[in-house]
Amino acid sequence: MGGAILSRKAPLLAAKIPVSLEVSVTIACVQMGVGDCDSRLLELQLLFFFSICCNAFYHSSNQGSLVVRNISEIPQNNFGREGFSHITIAGAVLHGMKEVELWLQTFTPGSRTPIHRHSCEEVFVVLNGRGTLLLASSSLMYPGTPQEYPIYSNSTFSIPVNDPHQVWNTDEHEDLQVLVVISRPPVKVFIYDDWSMPHTAARLKFPYYWDQQHLYEPKDEL
Amino acid sequence: MGGAILSRKAPLLAAKIPVSLEVSVTIACVQMGVGDCDSRLLELQLLFFFSICCNAFYHSSNQGSLVVRNISEIPQNNFGREGFSHITIAGAVLHGMKEVELWLQTFTPGSRTPIHRHSCEEVFVVLNGRGTLLLASSSLMYPGTPQEYPIYSNSTFSIPVNDPHQVWNTDEHEDLQVLVVISRPPVKVFIYDDWSMPHTAARLKFPYYWDQQHLYEPKDEL
Repeated sequence: MGGAILSRKAPLLAAKIPVSLEVSVTIACVQMGVGDCDSRLLELQLLFFFSICCNAFYHSSNQGSLVVRNISEIPQNNFGREGFSHITIAGAVLHGMKEVELWLQTFTPGSRTPIHRHSCEEVFVVLNGRGTLLLASSSLMYPGTPQEYPIYSNSTFSIPVNDPHQVWNTDEHEDLQVLVVISRPPVKVFIYDDWSMPHTAARLKFPYYWDQQHLYEPKDEL
Repeated sequence: MGGAILSRKAPLLAAKIPVSLEVSVTIACVQMGVGDCDSRLLELQLLFFFSICCNAFYHSSNQGSLVVRNISEIPQNNFGREGFSHITIAGAVLHGMKEVELWLQTFTPGSRTPIHRHSCEEVFVVLNGRGTLLLASSSLMYPGTPQEYPIYSNSTFSIPVNDPHQVWNTDEHEDLQVLVVISRPPVKVFIYDDWSMPHTAARLKFPYYWDQQHLYEPKDEL
């Protein structure tokens, strides 16, 4: 699953606009007579042409071959966290999901999530490897000593809403790979320095790293 | 993944109540003096004993080793549909999920879902095999000829809310195995006889087969 981070936008744009839409864009350009001398008219024509292209891309994104995507071709990133890899399989910021979001995450031996909580439901499916789930409660002033649960390939677990938790690859050799489902995207994460930090002192990180990247990434210029 | 359908309740109850809670139940029984002649008192004592057992099971379910579950040990069923297998990994009826639900489904060659729609988000991840997604629109009076998309191992796709669709294992040899995420559980499914049936004629099936099984299954008697 993965390897180098792949550039996503260019190949999708180049490969996925259906032939019929390419044809209609060409016809529209011919009908508009691009090449007239009046620069104001040319500007309007280019704007119209661009809007047709956007429309074609929108429809191909929603109804064309972009419906099915190869997970191996979705960009992955570690967001500065060593031994970590994240892929948003279906997300609010990237794909317009409103109610659920799905991630694929990989942790090398020894790597882990921060201690954190969020007020959404979260379900994990362990695809490969083994590790430890550390889970504390939101009912006291601070998390306190967490309970530890072994997690392993082909296991599943849910994080109760707002309970502080941490997922840790405690294996010495094998990567831990998990599918993660959350509700109410995009995720709003409160991060703890340690298990004795009061809940009220946990720092909100929003937008979270993978959402922030796409919210603030440079837009293509025309 | 799976094999025979496993009985879930008995082994969980037997295996998962922590030793400390078993001890406290025993102590409570001794303190109550079960065996007294007064039948009214005995009835109250049994009620109290039952409430302690329920409490023990509740806490073991929510904070004990039931947090992490082995997917291979979750019961699967075909609900009378030949060549089909369904496991609810995390569900509303079974596990108290409120916002997301997660299934593991397997289709033998040639088997398929009914043509159906639902007003929730749905994301698929293909774990194994290949097949075809048939996807139509909700914008006309009836679905009409669906678009066909090849689906394959390590691919993902989302079903737009309310769009009629069908997932089909069109491979001749290999099983198709998918992880399915839905929002707003439990799912409310409208089933079509064919692609020309008007949306208004599609039949609501609620609760759906896997939810119905657990809503109406016989309860353990005390």
